Amino acid sequence: MKININADLSEGFGAYDIGADSQLLDIVASANVACGMHGGDPGIMRETLMIAAERGVSVGAHPGFNDLWGFGRRQIDMKPDDLEYLVAYQIGAIMGMANYAGIAVTHVKAHGALNNMACVRSDYAEAIATAIKTVDDTLISLVMPGTELEKASQKYGLTIGREAFIDRTYEDDWTLTPRKLAGSVIKDPDLAARRAVEMVTNGGIQARSGEVLPIEFDSLCVHGDEPTSVAVAKACYDALTGAGVEIVPLPELV
Amino acid sequence: MKININADLSEGFGAYDIGADSQLLDIVASANVACGMHGGDPGIMRETLMIAAERGVSVGAHPGFNDLWGFGRRQIDMKPDDLEYLVAYQIGAIMGMANYAGIAVTHVKAHGALNNMACVRSDYAEAIATAIKTVDDTLISLVMPGTELEKASQKYGLTIGREAFIDRTYEDDWTLTPRKLAGSVIKDPDLAARRAVEMVTNGGIQARSGEVLPIEFDSLCVHGDEPTSVAVAKACYDALTGAGVEIVPLPELV
Amino acid sequence: MKININADLSEGFGAYDIGADSQLLDIVASANVACGMHGGDPGIMRETLMIAAERGVSVGAHPGFNDLWGFGRRQIDMKPDDLEYLVAYQIGAIMGMANYAGIAVTHVKAHGALNNMACVRSDYAEAIATAIKTVDDTLISLVMPGTELEKASQKYGLTIGREAFIDRTYEDDWTLTPRKLAGSVIKDPDLAARRAVEMVTNGGIQARSGEVLPIEFDSLCVHGDEPTSVAVAKACYDALTGAGVEIVPLPELV
Amino acid sequence: MKININADLSEGFGAYDIGADSQLLDIVASANVACGMHGGDPGIMRETLMIAAERGVSVGAHPGFNDLWGFGRRQIDMKPDDLEYLVAYQIGAIMGMANYAGIAVTHVKAHGALNNMACVRSDYAEAIATAIKTVDDTLISLVMPGTELEKASQKYGLTIGREAFIDRTYEDDWTLTPRKLAGSVIKDPDLAARRAVEMVTNGGIQARSGEVLPIEFDSLCVHGDEPTSVAVAKACYDALTGAGVEIVPLPELV
Repeated sequence: MKININADLSEGFGAYDIGADSQLLDIVASANVACGMHGGDPGIMRETLMIAAERGVSVGAHPGFNDLWGFGRRQIDMKPDDLEYLVAYQIGAIMGMANYAGIAVTHVKAHGALNNMACVRSDYAEAIATAIKTVDDTLISLVMPGTELEKASQKYGLTIGREAFIDRTYEDDWTLTPRKLAGSVIKDPDLAARRAVEMVTNGGIQARSGEVLPIEFDSLCVHGDEPTSVAVAKACYDALTGAGVEIVPLPELV
Repeated sequence: MKININADLSEGFGAYDIGADSQLLDIVASANVACGMHGGDPGIMRETLMIAAERGVSVGAHPGFNDLWGFGRRQIDMKPDDLEYLVAYQIGAIMGMANYAGIAVTHVKAHGALNNMACVRSDYAEAIATAIKTVDDTLISLVMPGTELEKASQKYGLTIGREAFIDRTYEDDWTLTPRKLAGSVIKDPDLAARRAVEMVTNGGIQARSGEVLPIEFDSLCVHGDEPTSVAVAKACYDALTGAGVEIVPLPELV
Repeated sequence: MKININADLSEGFGAYDIGADSQLLDIVASANVACGMHGGDPGIMRETLMIAAERGVSVGAHPGFNDLWGFGRRQIDMKPDDLEYLVAYQIGAIMGMANYAGIAVTHVKAHGALNNMACVRSDYAEAIATAIKTVDDTLISLVMPGTELEKASQKYGLTIGREAFIDRTYEDDWTLTPRKLAGSVIKDPDLAARRAVEMVTNGGIQARSGEVLPIEFDSLCVHGDEPTSVAVAKACYDALTGAGVEIVPLPELV
Repeated sequence: MKININADLSEGFGAYDIGADSQLLDIVASANVACGMHGGDPGIMRETLMIAAERGVSVGAHPGFNDLWGFGRRQIDMKPDDLEYLVAYQIGAIMGMANYAGIAVTHVKAHGALNNMACVRSDYAEAIATAIKTVDDTLISLVMPGTELEKASQKYGLTIGREAFIDRTYEDDWTLTPRKLAGSVIKDPDLAARRAVEMVTNGGIQARSGEVLPIEFDSLCVHGDEPTSVAVAKACYDALTGAGVEIVPLPELV
């Protein structure tokens, strides 16, 4: 049994560090690399790509809004065409940088508010899918199942990777429980680990209601931004490998 | 007899237009496309690339300092490594965008203060050459002959394109006469046109002193930023083609 | 009879020019000066302030989203607190620059998407009003009548200036006819001029439906971004002064 | 006996934290507040100003180059006029924000590469001094003694504050020993503390050569960017207060 684990990395900028990159690069098999717009600068991108190559971690573009102050977490209402070209630009940029590491970029995952908007807005979803298709139609589009972005990726014939979250609870409509609701972020490593093993070995994801949602996924997304999140990620990794699940780069699964 | 003509294009940003792009795209055979740092945004880059493809104009990356306010004309003293990655990032970005036009990026020419600094600083010259070599070692490095950037491009085994300026006078040491000296910018279309034909058909460039400098070049650079510059460029184009010189994309000459 | 005319100015950036600043500075009595976020840089701000001082034009801060690529025309969903501080920052910046011209900043008018959002979102409206109140509670808040921004400005006890548009038609609910509807932008200088004189001398604004809306205003806003807009503005100015209406700076009217 | 201690603060940006602000705000009596160009955003500026007001810490503008990626540490060669307006803009911005805290901005200290360049370039020094004089000529110009910036501040009649560094060694020409030389950064809290007390109580600064330089100063600058620097700063503070030296805001000393 195999699964992928992915995380958002390389989101520092100049003198600014952020995230638990070095710890997460020991856990994940695929890295979503920020491309200079919401975070990430060419030097930090290169360093992340070099370490990823060294550790056999596959890499993807992690394009975001061009909003460094907002760290890509602010919804911006832009023309879908402009968004498409912004995404294409970022994919190109990281493909250029990946030559330093001698590896290929193999997937694309949108960041923050852009990803959230593309889950529900078909114009944004189509903009992202079209950008991927135009720049390199062999790139995997890494999406949340059941979203507009998944639909658009299918429509344009992209290879699709599907992700689930190990540290978030789900509602019955397959969306994440809003962060403001108590318990929506799973901070207990043991609970997260049990849940991860169950999700991977039994299939489906148990919603907050108790119902098991028939969500299929290839990858588990882990975060580095809660104080507890690296511990949660590590516990899931250990429990999964302990249960005989192999953690592999995304391209092996799709 | 064949020669290339190149110009810096695509340097607008968002709501801001600049330069005489549409007129110059009828004159040049190669376009240096701004990559989003000193000017250019993904939408403007894409549009320029589409028009270039349509007109058979070859395209190059035109990387600059990340200084939109200064339009890349301010010297910035940065770590050569950071500069190298900044250039690589921009080359990657335009290579990504070029997929919209279905054409390949074939050369790189540094912009403004970056180009000026790389003429005389070997560390900056090596940073640019290394970036080109790493991202795509088949890209032509378009340089001024006799500079550190030419030397570094040779050292790293890059294919080199050499450019001369039709609207600037030269000193005996092969450098351009500083703009502040009267007469350093040639504004008379007829004078520029005679000069261009002489340079291309006889070889060498007559310096301000009268001496003919044995500078070899593959490309003539034209500008769009003086009120007279499009007229100068057009006169040179007409005189050259009238003298039987064929204007061809840079890759045909190197 | 007196009225103010205002326009958005100083929106260039670095090497980029935009707008018909010099022509509009002969027509308006009050200038909304971009503050460096959606457009405007310190040098351009200073120059505009100097000319305004010379011509007796009163000046206001024209804060926008920090989105140069989008020219402040993209809606950005940010925390109201962050927005408030962003507005306060820009007001402070222009107050600092106004010392070059030896004049006081006397009003604030939000730009583009920020203004549009503050018309309908009370949280954004309150953010702007609070920023004004905090930095300098004597500043006039220049608003469209009937909006959330007017309400918030009243709530915080600010002096209010109200503006109407000479080149746009109105709906019965006091909103502007959306630009995409034919005829929504008045491009005929004569029509605009007749309309301006009628609005100022009779009061109220005739809506597209024919109904006369009892909108009170102190200022007429003119634009510089349509090919026809300077001619429209000039015609209105001439017709108003011809009808004996005096064009005065905003502080004289509120 | 009285002395000031100052530090550079408020240099984070959006999601990015940097520096040991909260610890340093317990040690310093004056804060140099980043103004949004090399670091600092309106929200972070406001928060720093509020805490400074609460603790009786005087505040100054800490303007830098508009180079967030380079954190203001890259030398940029810009027109002195543009630099002047950039500095004026930042001073205005923080004066606006200071209204949140109900305190006045009382000094200006240039950041990083800008400060370094203004130590030796008279045009940059004059640009900074002119900006201060124009925006508010009562602001204290905080400078290193013996520099062009001190001279320009004197020339324009500004009140001058002079600073010395507790964690750096000096050369006989009053400049700091370059960081790359071993021992140039003092990392031993005890050594720094002894040195600080000696400097303040005896006057002058002992250079690396052993010579005591007759440098007069009103303020000691502490840093937050070495792993050892907060410990060094705290040790100096404790030793100084233990020796009966009162730590007071800069305006009390000039």
